[in-house]
Amino acid sequence: MAGTLTGVDPRTGETVGTGVPEAGPDEARAAAAAAAKAFRERPAPGAPGSFDDAVLLETVAAGLEDVAGELVEVAARETGLAEDRLQGEVARTVNQLRAFAAARRDGLLADAIIDTSRPDASPPRPDQRRVAVPLGPVAVFSASNFPFAFSTAGGDTASAFAAGCPVILKAHPAHPVTSHVTGQAVSAAVRAAGAPQEWFQLLQGASVELGQALATADDVAAVAFTGSLRAGRALVDAAAGREVPIPVFAEMGSINPLVVTPAALERRGGEIGRALAGAVLGSAGQLCTKPNLVLAAEGPGLDDLVGALTDAVSGAGELVMLTTRLRDGFAASWRHLLQDADVREVVPSSPGAREGAWQSPGLATVPAAALLQRPDLLEEHFGPGTVVAVARNGDELERLVATLPGTLTATLQGEDDDKDDSGVHRLAAALAARAGRMIWNGLPTGVTVGHATVHGGPYPATSAPATTSVGTTAARRFQRPVGYQAWPDALLPAELQDANPLGIVRLVDGTYTRDRVVRA
Amino acid sequence: MAGTLTGVDPRTGETVGTGVPEAGPDEARAAAAAAAKAFRERPAPGAPGSFDDAVLLETVAAGLEDVAGELVEVAARETGLAEDRLQGEVARTVNQLRAFAAARRDGLLADAIIDTSRPDASPPRPDQRRVAVPLGPVAVFSASNFPFAFSTAGGDTASAFAAGCPVILKAHPAHPVTSHVTGQAVSAAVRAAGAPQEWFQLLQGASVELGQALATADDVAAVAFTGSLRAGRALVDAAAGREVPIPVFAEMGSINPLVVTPAALERRGGEIGRALAGAVLGSAGQLCTKPNLVLAAEGPGLDDLVGALTDAVSGAGELVMLTTRLRDGFAASWRHLLQDADVREVVPSSPGAREGAWQSPGLATVPAAALLQRPDLLEEHFGPGTVVAVARNGDELERLVATLPGTLTATLQGEDDDKDDSGVHRLAAALAARAGRMIWNGLPTGVTVGHATVHGGPYPATSAPATTSVGTTAARRFQRPVGYQAWPDALLPAELQDANPLGIVRLVDGTYTRDRVVRA
Repeated sequence: MAGTLTGVDPRTGETVGTGVPEAGPDEARAAAAAAAKAFRERPAPGAPGSFDDAVLLETVAAGLEDVAGELVEVAARETGLAEDRLQGEVARTVNQLRAFAAARRDGLLADAIIDTSRPDASPPRPDQRRVAVPLGPVAVFSASNFPFAFSTAGGDTASAFAAGCPVILKAHPAHPVTSHVTGQAVSAAVRAAGAPQEWFQLLQGASVELGQALATADDVAAVAFTGSLRAGRALVDAAAGREVPIPVFAEMGSINPLVVTPAALERRGGEIGRALAGAVLGSAGQLCTKPNLVLAAEGPGLDDLVGALTDAVSGAGELVMLTTRLRDGFAASWRHLLQDADVREVVPSSPGAREGAWQSPGLATVPAAALLQRPDLLEEHFGPGTVVAVARNGDELERLVATLPGTLTATLQGEDDDKDDSGVHRLAAALAARAGRMIWNGLPTGVTVGHATVHGGPYPATSAPATTSVGTTAARRFQRPVGYQAWPDALLPAELQDANPLGIVRLVDGTYTRDRVVRA
Repeated sequence: MAGTLTGVDPRTGETVGTGVPEAGPDEARAAAAAAAKAFRERPAPGAPGSFDDAVLLETVAAGLEDVAGELVEVAARETGLAEDRLQGEVARTVNQLRAFAAARRDGLLADAIIDTSRPDASPPRPDQRRVAVPLGPVAVFSASNFPFAFSTAGGDTASAFAAGCPVILKAHPAHPVTSHVTGQAVSAAVRAAGAPQEWFQLLQGASVELGQALATADDVAAVAFTGSLRAGRALVDAAAGREVPIPVFAEMGSINPLVVTPAALERRGGEIGRALAGAVLGSAGQLCTKPNLVLAAEGPGLDDLVGALTDAVSGAGELVMLTTRLRDGFAASWRHLLQDADVREVVPSSPGAREGAWQSPGLATVPAAALLQRPDLLEEHFGPGTVVAVARNGDELERLVATLPGTLTATLQGEDDDKDDSGVHRLAAALAARAGRMIWNGLPTGVTVGHATVHGGPYPATSAPATTSVGTTAARRFQRPVGYQAWPDALLPAELQDANPLGIVRLVDGTYTRDRVVRA
């Protein structure tokens, strides 16, 4: 059944490399079983064959740094992305692995909670403690648009490792050679860190059957996915239909509205338009946080904003996209938008004539009233294009915001005096009811990895709005709590022992502390 | 479509009250829409019509205390449960509401995280903050076996209120009058706390259609359920098939294994048997944490354990169950167990001859080898009965533990010297891989409400192993994070403002503190 998968340079249509073997459903199930066995048989800390999750993360980070040059070179050929962007992405991926290692060491991922006993309470309260433990093997589906940060050794892999889970990595077929080279570095690091080789397994393949087999394999405990709504929802449905359902953390992109207040429009319309153009054109618009919809009310400055956007978009020339498939998908969704009589194409977008995945970027405007009547027009155009929705007044703009679907981000461009405007407060609340991350006077593209990071949001932005796929709390997705009642100290996990041998922060009787616990 | 629903005294079969009107799918959808409107239009803190979640919880607690006598009286008639047990349950329910109020005030439910900006970092790091916000209307399906603590004003309702969510309560048809009286007290408290009446709505009904309509109503954001695997899974499947899937937090009971080490068996076999009998017979065994399976290896003390259990169970006489339906369900599952040739009925269990839901309790033994061959015998018997599985040796016992399904609790009865036994360490690890809560030398019945409480576990114990349905962290089920990037202080939620006006604990640059934030 298995063929080979070959990389393609989207700039030229030429093949990259000689092809990697494709895995099928049997390989998926075998990988899951091997990961589950390694997970089940993992030696306790300190026992022969044991390894440390933080050390593993750091070893992977160092391993990637060692081959950064090769990674960037091959990814540039397979993705057409600029080398400086790719260099930055490798650095971010390395830093992300180290951030998870630090959070793990610090105990921030342990969610250790201790309620000491109260024998005098009525009824008497026993000693209760809990700690987060790993769920088991995680199937990670990597994305096409971030060949490092959301791919083989990206945020999902890092957070699964940080949680203590083995990873079965389903590589994205858009960059098989990049995935292969990265995977070899990860596997070498796994061995160097003393972990079994089954702790990380890479599967290459483009078939739907491979993905379905992974999502339904008995030995997979959770799925992480970044990609389209259609593919994400298929995995969600497959996992929900299992005898034992498992969680699917699918990040599926969104429209990322950017709202400009009248004051900001008047004072900075042109400036905002130029900044916006950068966010729409960068990486050919192939970012899950790219603004698909700009919202403003008619008034002074609107012409400046649209004019600046028009100049930048029409002057950009053809851009190369990741694959012809993505390019064709963007072109089709853009054509669909233009079929609406109320949509006006300000800068026409069209596929390039030469070989490869070239597309000229587009800009359109639409009256807010049309979107209010036909909310199906509010869809993501994954690629170099955006739409400016023009409301007749602030009231209509507010009503439009109230109809927006769930989104990863929402951006508000405002002025200082807007902070006292009750309409702006209402607008911010309405956006926050729909978004995972709110940005003030910035752009949604670019996600900083920290403790406070939220890269998530209500459906259809994700299938699990309570979680984030970026930032240290992303590890929470792959954990569950285990409680211990009146449990002997010698048998407790180190995170919960009285002496706090790991020196981690714990919530003890309602207060966060690193102090040892004194039993009543 | 709607008829009326009447309570029944399971001790006599006599009706209780004159019947309450049954709601149908239309009422479910209307209630959800009304809750969503109240949620959407909730005034900001301090604005006219605003209310405080902690005050709401405390007002409900006080309201229940005021009618505690009436509640116990009517519940005793509708459930047949002992009055002292019911008094304790009301007290626990009241304390639980207050514990959520305190956790809410303290900020422990806000999950507030702040990463201050680092303009000098490469790339520069913006100020990022996040806070947990409520998901929206929660549909709560109450349980039959705890008419207060897991019912109208129970843990699910309390944790939804604590998260800031309105509740649509689908009352259990086994105690309609108790639900009605409790619901009236809750509704009065909602009004007294200044919340809109739609913040709590009670629906009575026994139809499958009512439950399905709630789980699929567009305006419901999450479902909480306590009951059988079959009913819970039906809700999980209904919610998964929605256009916008929503989480279902179903707690579906489990087998709650109790393992006795050889040392404990030899020294305390009889004592453990007597204690176990109390956990099996109390509330006629109708607890989701009742031990369904006792595991021990052949050896000194086994006869003492089985003998003590036999004496207590055979001497208990007939016990009244909550409903004839539950009694018939228990009797059927017990008969199914006994069909296996290797199962030996030590104390026969049979339905009582008189009117009502009477059943004499049962005890059976089975060789561990039979369970290893036929794991389908490992099922929950919801009622007054338990099974002792006898292994030929410690190795067989360990193998049996490794096949157990997900469970709410696992109990280990051991001795001090067991703490150094590597076999016991392995046993504890194998149990922790399957259980939500581990108990040492105690009994799993009885759940203490605290920060460290875990009342959850791998499927089929629950549909959401990452969560707990008891304890203050149960509120996390109904929240999602919202992030704010470079957001002006004046527009931030109070939980995230620099000055920390609520005085809550927050994770600021990796350290928990109540200090104000100083911006760079």
